[in-house]
Formats: sequence, C-alpha cells, structure tokens
Amino acid sequence: GVKMLLAPVQPVDVAEAIGNLPRTLQALAFRLLRKDEAIEVYEYLDPAVQQSLLERLRSGEVLELVEEMSPDDRVRLFDELPAKVVRRLLAELSPAERKVTAQLLGYAPETAGRLMTTEYIDLKDFHSAAQALTIVRRRARQTETIYSLYVTDGERHLTGILSLRDLVTADPEDRLGDVMTREVVSVGTDTDQEDVARAIQRYDFLAVPVVDRERRLVGIVTVDDVIDVIEQEATRDLYAAGAVEAGDEDDYFQSNLFTVARRRVVWLSVLVVASFFTSEVIALNEQVLKEVVLLAAFIPLLAGTGGNVGAQSSTVVIRGLSTQSIASLGRIKAVVREATAGLLLGLLMMVLVVPFAWWRGESPLVGLSVGTSLLAITTLAATAGAGFPLLFDRMGLDPALMSTPFITTCTDVVGTLIYLKTAQWLLAHMPQLLQSTGISAHFWLAAFS
Amino acid sequence: GVKMLLAPVQPVDVAEAIGNLPRTLQALAFRLLRKDEAIEVYEYLDPAVQQSLLERLRSGEVLELVEEMSPDDRVRLFDELPAKVVRRLLAELSPAERKVTAQLLGYAPETAGRLMTTEYIDLKDFHSAAQALTIVRRRARQTETIYSLYVTDGERHLTGILSLRDLVTADPEDRLGDVMTREVVSVGTDTDQEDVARAIQRYDFLAVPVVDRERRLVGIVTVDDVIDVIEQEATRDLYAAGAVEAGDEDDYFQSNLFTVARRRVVWLSVLVVASFFTSEVIALNEQVLKEVVLLAAFIPLLAGTGGNVGAQSSTVVIRGLSTQSIASLGRIKAVVREATAGLLLGLLMMVLVVPFAWWRGESPLVGLSVGTSLLAITTLAATAGAGFPLLFDRMGLDPALMSTPFITTCTDVVGTLIYLKTAQWLLAHMPQLLQSTGISAHFWLAAFS
Ligand SMILES: [Mg+2]
Ligand SMILES: [Mg+2]
Ligand SMILES: [Mg+2]
Ligand SMILES: [Mg+2]
Ligand SMILES: [Mg+2]
Ligand SMILES: [Mg+2]
Ligand SMILES: [Mg+2]
Ligand SMILES: [Mg+2]
Ligand SMILES: [Mg+2]
Ligand SMILES: [Mg+2]
Ligand SMILES: [Mg+2]
Ligand SMILES: [Mg+2]
Ligand SMILES: [Mg+2]
Repeated sequence: GVKMLLAPVQPVDVAEAIGNLPRTLQALAFRLLRKDEAIEVYEYLDPAVQQSLLERLRSGEVLELVEEMSPDDRVRLFDELPAKVVRRLLAELSPAERKVTAQLLGYAPETAGRLMTTEYIDLKDFHSAAQALTIVRRRARQTETIYSLYVTDGERHLTGILSLRDLVTADPEDRLGDVMTREVVSVGTDTDQEDVARAIQRYDFLAVPVVDRERRLVGIVTVDDVIDVIEQEATRDLYAAGAVEAGDEDDYFQSNLFTVARRRVVWLSVLVVASFFTSEVIALNEQVLKEVVLLAAFIPLLAGTGGNVGAQSSTVVIRGLSTQSIASLGRIKAVVREATAGLLLGLLMMVLVVPFAWWRGESPLVGLSVGTSLLAITTLAATAGAGFPLLFDRMGLDPALMSTPFITTCTDVVGTLIYLKTAQWLLAHMPQLLQSTGISAHFWLAAFS
Repeated sequence: GVKMLLAPVQPVDVAEAIGNLPRTLQALAFRLLRKDEAIEVYEYLDPAVQQSLLERLRSGEVLELVEEMSPDDRVRLFDELPAKVVRRLLAELSPAERKVTAQLLGYAPETAGRLMTTEYIDLKDFHSAAQALTIVRRRARQTETIYSLYVTDGERHLTGILSLRDLVTADPEDRLGDVMTREVVSVGTDTDQEDVARAIQRYDFLAVPVVDRERRLVGIVTVDDVIDVIEQEATRDLYAAGAVEAGDEDDYFQSNLFTVARRRVVWLSVLVVASFFTSEVIALNEQVLKEVVLLAAFIPLLAGTGGNVGAQSSTVVIRGLSTQSIASLGRIKAVVREATAGLLLGLLMMVLVVPFAWWRGESPLVGLSVGTSLLAITTLAATAGAGFPLLFDRMGLDPALMSTPFITTCTDVVGTLIYLKTAQWLLAHMPQLLQSTGISAHFWLAAFS
C-alpha cells in the first residue's frame, strides 16, 4: 500500500482528519492551522464540512478563507451552498475576486469555463527569459501552477505557450517570442469537461489553456481537476450500466436510505413497466404454453442470454464512444460488426442450449423452438445493444442512458414473442411437415400426446 | 471541441498521422522527423505500428530509437514484442539502459515498479538552491520531469522531496536540507498500479516516488501514465459489469471478430449453464404451471426486477470499493444497508406490480404470489449483489468479477423457485384459509375452475 511517514502533513490528510472529528471540534481543530495551510486544507474538505465550518467560524475568518481560495475551488463550494449564502459571500469578496467568481459561475456546469482557474501566469513575447523567470518567482505563491506559462498580446489573445522547463533551459537573453511554442492546443470556455479531460490525457499536459470566442486567454484547467472529472464520468457510466442514477458527487455511501431508494426506484419502475409488455406477450400466447407447459422453462434462459449479449454490445459501444476508440471504425460498421458477433455467439450457444432444451423439454419441438429463437434473439440483442447507444449519441444525448438494463428489458419482450410464435408455428406445422418426410409425428410431439 | 491551430505538431498527433498511413509509407514518413522528435513520436505510436517500424527501419536506426526511449515506454514496448526480439534488443542496448530495462521488466505487471521511469532528478541535502538549479538545468533534457525533485542520502535512501516551485522561490544560498519536505508520500515497487493512481489522485501530485524495501529511491511514476491506468481500470470494471473479458489494451474495436467472440463466449457460456438451473426449477414445478398457466407470464418480470436490483447493488458496491468510498462505512453495514434498500424497493415496486399481476393474471392468486415473491426476490438480490463483491474483495479477488450478469443469473434461479413454491403453497392452502374467513373460494381461484 501507500506508505506514509509520521502524522498527516498533506492538506488532504489533514482535511480527512478534521472531517472525521465531531462537528463541534472541527472549527476548533481548523483554527489550529497556519493561515496558508488552512486555505489549502479547506479546499480539500467535504462540501458538508465546508458548509458547517462556514457557520461555526467568525465572519471575519470566513471572509478571509473564501477570499483566499482558488477561484475554481470557490466556485465548487458556491455550487453546494444555498443561493442566499452565496449572494452574501459574493457581496463581501474583494471586487477582483467577486468579478472572477461571478464570471466562472456564469459558465454552464461541466464545461471548461466552470472547471478552470484564473490564477495562471501570463507573459509577453518581448520579455527575456531572465525577466520571465523573475516574474515567475514573484508570482509563484499566488498562482495555481508555474510549470505551464502563457504568452498573450495586448488584447489578451493567447499567442504562445512555454513550460518552465523551456524557460530554465533557455538562454537568459532569449526573448520569449523565440522560445515559445506558437501552435497551442487550447479548449473553449464551453468545451464539455469530458473533452477537456480527453485533451489533457491525449497530450499528457499538466494544464490546458481555456480561451473565449475571441481566443482571449481566460483561464486554465489543471490535470488534478481533470483526474476527478475522469473518475466522475467513469462512475456515471458505471452507474448508468447498473441502472442507478448518479449523484453530483460520488457519495452513494454517505447518503441516507431514502436518497438511495430515490436514485434507484425511477429506473426500476421504468423497467418494471417495460416488462409488463413481456407479461402481456406471454399472456396473449397462453394457448401454446397450455399445450406444451415445458416451453415456459426456457423463457428465462432465452431472455437472460439475449440480455447478456445485448449488455455486452452496449458495454463495448458505450465505452468505445467515451474513449473515442470507436471513432476510427464508424457507426454503421460498428453495428454490423456487433450484429455479426451476435449471430456468431448465438451459433456457439446453440451447441450447449439445443441438446439441453431437447432433453429437458422432453421434446424435439422445444429444442427446435429454443434453438431458432436463440439465434434470432442474440443477433437482435447485439444489434440493439450497439445501435441504441450510437443512435442516442448521434442525437446528442448521453449514450450511457441506453444502458444494459434498458437493452435487457427490450430484448425480453421481443425475445419472448419470437420464442412463443416460433413454438406456435412449429406446433401447427411440424406434424404435417414431418408426415411428408415419413417421420412419426408422435416422436416429434412426444411430450404432449 | 478541442481546437487546434495548424498542422499536427504535438508528438501524439504526428504519431496518429503516421499510424493512419499505409504500412509501406510509415517508415518513410517516420524518417522525415528530427531525431529528438522521432523518439517522442515513437513512444506515442500504437504497439502494432511500433513493431512494424522495428522491422522496416535499419538496425542502426532501431537501436538508437530503443536506446533513447524512456525506460517506462521501452518496457511497455518490450511487453508487446516476441521474447526473441526482446532478447536481441536488450543485448544491443548500452549497459546502463540494459540494466535499467531488465530491472523494470523484473517487477510484476501492473505494479509501481513496472510503471515507473528511472529518469528523475536526485539531489543532495547539502546542495544549495543555486547549485540544485544548475543541476536541474543541466539534466532538464534527459529527465522525465524537472518539477518534482528528490533528495537522497549516500545510500540512495529517499530523505526529502521538493518541487521546482520550492526551488525557484528559495533563497539561492539555502541548503536543500532546510527547504525540502521530509514527510514524503511514496509507494513501493510492488504497490498495485490502482493504489499508485489513487495516491496521485488523492494528493494531486504530478509524480510519486517509488522506493524499494530498504526505502531506496528507484523510480517515479508520473501523472500522465496514471491517467492511463485510471482509464484502463475503469474500462476493466465496465467490461466486467457487461460480462466482457477486458483485453490488455482498450482495443476492442481493433480486434477481429473471432477475438471478439472469444472475449464474450466464455462468460456467456457460464451464464447459460447457470440458467439451466432456472429451467430445471421451472420444469420440476411444471405441475403448478399446468394448473395456472398465467403464472408463467410473470417469471420474466420477477427475474428481471431481481436482476436489476441486484445489478444496482453490485454496481454501487464495486464502484465504492474501487473509489474507496465504501471504506468509511464498513462491509457488514454496507450489506445490511443494501438489504434494507432492497426490501424498501420491493415494497415500492409492489404498488405497481401487484395490481397489474392480479388483473393480467386474471386471479388474486397470481397477484398474491407475484407480490410475495417480489419482496423476497428484491431483498435477496440486493443482499447478494452487495455481499458477493465484498466477499470476493475480502478473499483478495477482484470484486468486479462478481458482476451484474452473474448476480442476475443467480437471482433468476432463486427468484423463480421462490415464486413457484409460493404459488404452489397458495394454491394448496388458499381455499381452506378463505373458507374459514367466509370469502368465496371461487372468487379467489377465478381463473382456474
Ligand atoms: Mg487567490
Ligand atoms: Mg487546488
Ligand atoms: Mg458531459
Ligand atoms: Mg496520455
Ligand atoms: Mg484546481
Ligand atoms: Mg459520459
Ligand atoms: Mg434478465
Ligand atoms: Mg533516456
Ligand atoms: Mg513520455
Ligand atoms: Mg490491479
Ligand atoms: Mg485530486
Ligand atoms: Mg511515462
Ligand atoms: Mg479494479
């Protein structure tokens, strides 16, 4: 495991220790921290603990804390606070911090604008490397990172980028204009947080600059916040795959039972109502079940296998969309490929399933019905499992909503219908077909004389 | 989206462009790159393209490339190459690089030792800040990062850490021993890559030092590689939830149909054989279905709802284990909580399901059987969904293997059994029970006179 020496010294460890104290002691413990420590620790506290500290600290302490926080962390705090408290705190901030905070709060949730911080170092292309290093040294303590440095022109347009590595290895006399990289990868203020994460992951950046519509530099998103986005998005996709509504935070185990039930009952109800259709299909085909009761024994197997194949296809397609590994293949090809895989898997399953159904169903008719519909169901399930998420993505909706449980329930309805209709048809036509081949009808329908 | 100016200049973009060329042109295009560019681009190429370039370039070019690669990227390349090629390349490396590579290859896959690079900057506590900065400048080009700096003693023990930010803001005369942080968070060579990722995410580090059993510094793991680990582990969990075997790489859409079928058919077969038990349960209880055929109409609904509740519970527990958010609650409490949630959800579902089953089943008996077993099934499914992954985790196995499809199939068997046995019992005892209350037995058994 991770080895730590001595007592907690990392801000996140201190924050955790304070969070584990009884409410009444939290403010007491928090006051023991040095001022600069306190701000860092506060940024790492759970939103609930942040809120309770706001209530317990003196208003002067609160103001100092909120004033000194990183703009991005302040915005994340304000997102959790009641609107009334936010208005009061905003009014009490210094004009500069108030302006920045209001600006970030103005961007849509889950965009680069909402995620970024405005505390970056911007330099000019006429600065020498030595001048730049002096500026970096002076601003090192109040900025989010000194490792990515940005060069802007008189109108704040982003014209170049350089790393502190470039700067310290440059000749002190060099102008930044000659050292910097002019081909800058940047994101827009309205870029989705997932695309921001994708950019940092792809280019192995420590931060990515955020520009407005006029390409003016307005902020940076750093890799530490991007890792949290990646985790949040993975949780969301996993929860969708498991038919659980994802919360704003990954806090399932902190929430009470009624929140838990609320986050699960909606999806469950939708799925239950969907499976009323399966009940309806079976009830309407009651007649064939009355004649061959053992047909019922294979409904769960067929529905289950269809569901599992559909789940596999939707899983790989949803993940492929989110990691962009599907892009190179193309949508149509991806669906065709999944459909073929479904057919292939159905054929492979038949080797196991048909002999079992024949024997356990005590009749070749059951074996034949199960086999035929198995093939149809796996092909269909794979097609739907791949097609629905792709369709949703095309329509600009989250493909993860077309998740496993939804696909499973859909294939249940169609699969059961195919199965019972096949059995009905075989029941009606097998004897004649068989008589014409000279095989005893009694043999084929052994189970229900 | 992500906006890029001009033609590809980032190594990863060049690597993608080369990867999209026909095989015969790849070596040609690759030779056009400057030497230092070529090494960076090569590190970003797909393993398949890396391999084909090894075959097409002259052996002198190959050697230079492999010699200059980062040790961690070289190890990742060697992981993909045939053992014979690896042996040849190892023999041709310089002694220093050969030793480092053999060392990294000696650590188990998916550990910090296998993931780390040995190209870090180590300093001594008697160095002044000015001396240290000179060393950093000199080594900046051959090292993975200059932003995290490590202080070691005469026996290479890690005694402190400082950031380049600390260094440039320090007084040039200061000794590193007075500036550095002595409480270092580090990982061991055998630490699982997930725990390494968790540490970097928790502490917002750009890199974490790796020490051996004697606490000697042997390497560092950087945040860019950790992001790839986080993505790989998320894909693995999602695939497990969808009953797809995860490959080494996230390459599902590059692999051929038979690989696809192989990665899916094993799980499907296991699940099909498991659902033979459900068929067996139904076949053995054929008698009750013969008497009330419409009971069959609700088998998919019950199995489906049980499966969905179980899927929800296993999803939140597996994710909770992987983000460590379950740790604060404790295993037993987590299972009890899920069981209670299952019961609660069953009660809520009953409001929808019982009236429907009563009406569509054309008998109160069906409604009652469905309702009773629904409650039992949701409670059981939630308990199993939470319990199995926790048990697996406790046994040191990957909890993600106790995934949705497995839980679903288990609840199918037990759920169907509970349902049919409940119906059988009601069928046998209802008339008498009802007669004693004076209600007409004919009313209760309306459907099957
Ligand atoms: Mg500030
Ligand atoms: Mg921060
Ligand atoms: Mg989004
Ligand atoms: Mg990367
Ligand atoms: Mg931040
Ligand atoms: Mg998403
Ligand atoms: Mg199912
Ligand atoms: Mg090297
Ligand atoms: Mg690299
Ligand atoms: Mg692992
Ligand atoms: Mg973090
Ligand atoms: Mg690396
Ligand atoms: Mg895992």
